[in-house]
Amino acid sequence: MGMVGGGPGSFIGRVHYMAAIMDGQAELVCGSFSSDPAKSKITGKEYYLPPHRVYDTFGDMIREEAKLPEGERMDFVSIVTPNHLHFQPAKMAMENGFHVVCDKPLALDADEAEVMVRIKEETGMLFALTHTYAGYPMVKEAREVVRSGALGKIRKVVVEYPQGWLSEPLEKTDHVQASWRGDPKRSGKTCCVGDIGTHAFHLAEYVTEMKVTKLMADLSTLVPGRILDDDANMLLHFDNGARGVLYASQVSAGEENAIKLRVYGEKGGFEWMQMEPNTLVIRWLQRPIEVRRTGTPFVSPAATYNTRVPAGHPEGYIEAFANIYRNAVSCIKHLMEGTEPPDVALDFPTIYDGLRGMHFVDAAVESSKTRSWVSL
Amino acid sequence: MGMVGGGPGSFIGRVHYMAAIMDGQAELVCGSFSSDPAKSKITGKEYYLPPHRVYDTFGDMIREEAKLPEGERMDFVSIVTPNHLHFQPAKMAMENGFHVVCDKPLALDADEAEVMVRIKEETGMLFALTHTYAGYPMVKEAREVVRSGALGKIRKVVVEYPQGWLSEPLEKTDHVQASWRGDPKRSGKTCCVGDIGTHAFHLAEYVTEMKVTKLMADLSTLVPGRILDDDANMLLHFDNGARGVLYASQVSAGEENAIKLRVYGEKGGFEWMQMEPNTLVIRWLQRPIEVRRTGTPFVSPAATYNTRVPAGHPEGYIEAFANIYRNAVSCIKHLMEGTEPPDVALDFPTIYDGLRGMHFVDAAVESSKTRSWVSL
Amino acid sequence: MGMVGGGPGSFIGRVHYMAAIMDGQAELVCGSFSSDPAKSKITGKEYYLPPHRVYDTFGDMIREEAKLPEGERMDFVSIVTPNHLHFQPAKMAMENGFHVVCDKPLALDADEAEVMVRIKEETGMLFALTHTYAGYPMVKEAREVVRSGALGKIRKVVVEYPQGWLSEPLEKTDHVQASWRGDPKRSGKTCCVGDIGTHAFHLAEYVTEMKVTKLMADLSTLVPGRILDDDANMLLHFDNGARGVLYASQVSAGEENAIKLRVYGEKGGFEWMQMEPNTLVIRWLQRPIEVRRTGTPFVSPAATYNTRVPAGHPEGYIEAFANIYRNAVSCIKHLMEGTEPPDVALDFPTIYDGLRGMHFVDAAVESSKTRSWVSL
Amino acid sequence: MGMVGGGPGSFIGRVHYMAAIMDGQAELVCGSFSSDPAKSKITGKEYYLPPHRVYDTFGDMIREEAKLPEGERMDFVSIVTPNHLHFQPAKMAMENGFHVVCDKPLALDADEAEVMVRIKEETGMLFALTHTYAGYPMVKEAREVVRSGALGKIRKVVVEYPQGWLSEPLEKTDHVQASWRGDPKRSGKTCCVGDIGTHAFHLAEYVTEMKVTKLMADLSTLVPGRILDDDANMLLHFDNGARGVLYASQVSAGEENAIKLRVYGEKGGFEWMQMEPNTLVIRWLQRPIEVRRTGTPFVSPAATYNTRVPAGHPEGYIEAFANIYRNAVSCIKHLMEGTEPPDVALDFPTIYDGLRGMHFVDAAVESSKTRSWVSL
Repeated sequence: MGMVGGGPGSFIGRVHYMAAIMDGQAELVCGSFSSDPAKSKITGKEYYLPPHRVYDTFGDMIREEAKLPEGERMDFVSIVTPNHLHFQPAKMAMENGFHVVCDKPLALDADEAEVMVRIKEETGMLFALTHTYAGYPMVKEAREVVRSGALGKIRKVVVEYPQGWLSEPLEKTDHVQASWRGDPKRSGKTCCVGDIGTHAFHLAEYVTEMKVTKLMADLSTLVPGRILDDDANMLLHFDNGARGVLYASQVSAGEENAIKLRVYGEKGGFEWMQMEPNTLVIRWLQRPIEVRRTGTPFVSPAATYNTRVPAGHPEGYIEAFANIYRNAVSCIKHLMEGTEPPDVALDFPTIYDGLRGMHFVDAAVESSKTRSWVSL
Repeated sequence: MGMVGGGPGSFIGRVHYMAAIMDGQAELVCGSFSSDPAKSKITGKEYYLPPHRVYDTFGDMIREEAKLPEGERMDFVSIVTPNHLHFQPAKMAMENGFHVVCDKPLALDADEAEVMVRIKEETGMLFALTHTYAGYPMVKEAREVVRSGALGKIRKVVVEYPQGWLSEPLEKTDHVQASWRGDPKRSGKTCCVGDIGTHAFHLAEYVTEMKVTKLMADLSTLVPGRILDDDANMLLHFDNGARGVLYASQVSAGEENAIKLRVYGEKGGFEWMQMEPNTLVIRWLQRPIEVRRTGTPFVSPAATYNTRVPAGHPEGYIEAFANIYRNAVSCIKHLMEGTEPPDVALDFPTIYDGLRGMHFVDAAVESSKTRSWVSL
Repeated sequence: MGMVGGGPGSFIGRVHYMAAIMDGQAELVCGSFSSDPAKSKITGKEYYLPPHRVYDTFGDMIREEAKLPEGERMDFVSIVTPNHLHFQPAKMAMENGFHVVCDKPLALDADEAEVMVRIKEETGMLFALTHTYAGYPMVKEAREVVRSGALGKIRKVVVEYPQGWLSEPLEKTDHVQASWRGDPKRSGKTCCVGDIGTHAFHLAEYVTEMKVTKLMADLSTLVPGRILDDDANMLLHFDNGARGVLYASQVSAGEENAIKLRVYGEKGGFEWMQMEPNTLVIRWLQRPIEVRRTGTPFVSPAATYNTRVPAGHPEGYIEAFANIYRNAVSCIKHLMEGTEPPDVALDFPTIYDGLRGMHFVDAAVESSKTRSWVSL
Repeated sequence: MGMVGGGPGSFIGRVHYMAAIMDGQAELVCGSFSSDPAKSKITGKEYYLPPHRVYDTFGDMIREEAKLPEGERMDFVSIVTPNHLHFQPAKMAMENGFHVVCDKPLALDADEAEVMVRIKEETGMLFALTHTYAGYPMVKEAREVVRSGALGKIRKVVVEYPQGWLSEPLEKTDHVQASWRGDPKRSGKTCCVGDIGTHAFHLAEYVTEMKVTKLMADLSTLVPGRILDDDANMLLHFDNGARGVLYASQVSAGEENAIKLRVYGEKGGFEWMQMEPNTLVIRWLQRPIEVRRTGTPFVSPAATYNTRVPAGHPEGYIEAFANIYRNAVSCIKHLMEGTEPPDVALDFPTIYDGLRGMHFVDAAVESSKTRSWVSL
């Protein structure tokens, strides 16, 4: 794998790295870690890369790697840059025959996203999107619970994603994460909705396998002087008639990263919280509360397949991230070998999830502006 | 005290009783427990009341008790009937010189509520409304945290009230609680919003001491064949510019009575859950999470005043209810003696909270119908 | 009921009162609240008792009440004094035909306790002991789980009772609760073991219906200058071969009242914590974790019988206490009427539990002194 | 790094691998994964090792690797075999100039352990022991809390380690983990005490930096037909006068891996649970409960240094394990370069912890056999 982005100060670059290598199925062989070649070299050294495979630009990397013999050259590109720098490297990678693992949200807007989808389809490359939360075993278990029909028809979905880290105008300091997220040129038309709202949206649709058909959004900028939204509250309607609430906030002071999903059907409901990810609480209408746990024999094959250690040995964020990589890399291997990947490996977010996320962002922005329900 | 309602099958009547007598400050001396005199007699006997003080109608009760000498006659009336039977007994009680403790919501609609307010003001009677959740010590602590300014300006409020007990059409059975709540004639124009949405609304305003200025509501009937709403999701704006989410649901299958409030300000936020009521979790932006507990020396006088046992001896719903009674009864005593009650005793929901709740119900219904933001 | 003890500064007196009256099945008609008649009068006034039924001594109370006609005189005595003042009033009450509800531990030592048992048997009076924790619905549910055999043979019991309130030498201040508990003349030969160790011991035996056959104890005084023990750790063997750990501590700084029981059998185990008393977590070997909750339809009749409000409306310490009173009072009524109480009402701790507790205290003290296992 | 053990069916081998490579500071270059060369080859292939570096025996591996030039040959050996196969490879590795990372417990008995210590001291090799739980950030935070003196003198320590996985006689099946643990020839004189009791013991001493001076143990075999102990309960005395309870159990049916530590001092206490490892709850005598969380700015440098992702992104068991590797590998690098490692890197369990663990095992066995307190 080759990495685009992830230079000094990046948190997510290191996460992609740890996730990619965890299972010994991928290794980092080259990178273009920063738009500043000097910074790129620093990071390359930290990864013990040979200097000639630390490139000045992603363009160089893709061009040069493409010339290397198969087996030596990178097999796929991990794109871990800010939003405005997903499109170009992804396009170029695919056009040069490299598969792509890309951070979310997919692009700056739905237009870019649609182009990316077209290229993906034309080139036949694999494109994985790191909606991390879909990688947790108990999220997969939750989806299996819905699929099993045990809850009956789903009636209500509540997904929330409160964070507090932008309670102060960090984007006006030199804070790496905050400064690009707060800048429309690099982040797109939203901050909160794009950055974490899309995660919440994806989680809800991933688990329920239902589609949001329309929404009513209230986007706000609660920190004075900020340009983009930092708080977003929405009402949802789903394609099966279910109702929902989605909210995301970066100014819920004191909250860490508290994405949580609740789904209720005719016969019961469940609750999953990312900050205690190895537990799925299912509340039944006709029997006592049930608690399913990662690594126990009582969960679905989908959950078990995405678990590395026995019950009671907590798995976390990096492992969830690694599940997305492991599945994507497994599919890439099969693609390269011309074989069929097992069904369990097909389970990772794709470019189509990314496109849907961009449509969600557009709908949320429009709804909030027009103060009306918007179809999706 | 004399009770109106609370006959066989009533849950809330017995709660009012336990709450009223807990501190030895009130006793039940008479009642008209049911519109069916035979049933009323059964309940009267269970309370060991002398037969002549178990009345056939609330009208009889108020008339006859008014004739008894002070000290012997009831001092106030507890109204624990379904919504459509609040207005008449409350009106008559006040007009005959009796104070009132009334279950919520105050009335069938805002029109009734406004008449009740007028009578209350003309007669000078005390009128307490049992928004129970305001009676919990840690709810009072939460209010003190807001008041202290320690959180800075409040930016976000999330209040939720999921229940699951109406996941099936219980109102079509002989289920006492469900049948009147599902019947517009007895419940009013809403079920979920009036029954539990008003609790959530009151809790949010009580704790923050801010006012909701407008709301966007999505009321749904998710159980086929049901007449009134059983699920309600709303976006809120507050008078200080804060944003909010309120949701109430009676079809969140598996949920018990999970009312929960989260409030976030510039410097931190807190979370209170009724089902673990003795804990208030405060998350600070600039220091570690703090957990305040009922009965410890680290809480406000307001919390301490409303606590009966030492820390670690959990207090619950009945005690919270009893706090409303204790404070109201204390004020009634002072009123009757012509003395000033202490400030701490003034802390109970009143008819004005009830009126505001009716306006909230009206706004929610209108917003949902017109699919637009409605001012409150 | 008449009360002995519970004067100014007493916490437990007020708890007995609230517990006794909660269900409208008993009322306080007289009392001797303090060895100081002036203080007794103050408390009597707070309870709105007529002055002539507030007695100077418990002896006066028992003698005078005995002269009153049945129906007017008290039916039973509640003894809420420090340990050294249980024996005399209990003895005298029973000998004068009054039933007794007594706080724990039963007496100063096993010798006193055995005399009390003899008198109880000779007089035929009912004698209830307020081991509060046995009153919680989910404790009763736990016992039903054991009884059902669903766990198979019980192998391991862990009961712990950490408190922190005696982390400083409060007994050297004028702290009412601490001063008598730390004084061997009033408390007996132990502080921690007698005060809270007996609760833990009772809870373990009550729920498992097994008997401790021998124990190895390590009693310590961890606060310098203190006379009696403030920390006690023990290893247990049960009559069925099960092993156990019991610990009680009053110097676990920061702990409130964290009594907790865990029981494990061949097929699963459960956990109950007093500070979240409405939840019983059952972990099964062959199926997912199950959480049973007070007030749901999924619990045993024993649990339901001891529950007052619907699921999700938390019940607490006062309600648990009230369950002991309600059941004892129900039996007293049946005894007085010569009828048979229902089986569910027979469920309250008795003088025999008290005697067993005194034997436990003796064994713990001896084991710790001789540093050897002691049979019980 | 070269691995000894970890062949097919091993859980811990894969954990060592993931932990070692996580931070890109070590890679697996060779291995002798099983006593069966065919199985070793299978595992070697799974790790993409070149066939010539997958050895038939650990002896071959150490001999052959020692002949390779520095930079190419492995730098250290990871020993992940059952207990009886720690001594020989560790001895040979050190004698051939290889550093060692070894699974716990260190050896079969204290005699072996003492020889190992002597060799370590003679050869000057680094020897790390994977007492995983010491690798968690919040465990390090807990130690810092003790060190800071904020709790005052420590008075009480409670460490428990319940598991349920041996509730049935798995060791009589072909269960890989269970069969060797239940076999005295491979496990040593204990099962439960050595396997998990040593973890609990290490955790208590690591965090408090106090030493257990004597203990009273009750070891039991609760599953019929089993040879070794599966449940162990102990009373502890510490060198500063503190008291303690330690228990470990493999037959606490339904428990996963619930190691938990509580420490109480004069001014407060804390609680850490491995199954929710990113939280440290500190309860103060003189102020509200404080909750410290991994990744927040409010924890010590020691905690921060051992954290990889921001607050709210849970880290788990593999990351804790990786912290031990990262620190040990960092020290190995400095040793090889002749430089001084930073203080933070010195923080990993060593052979001396392993020796102490073996003394603990011996004392526990003796105490249980003689039914008396034994010094340590």
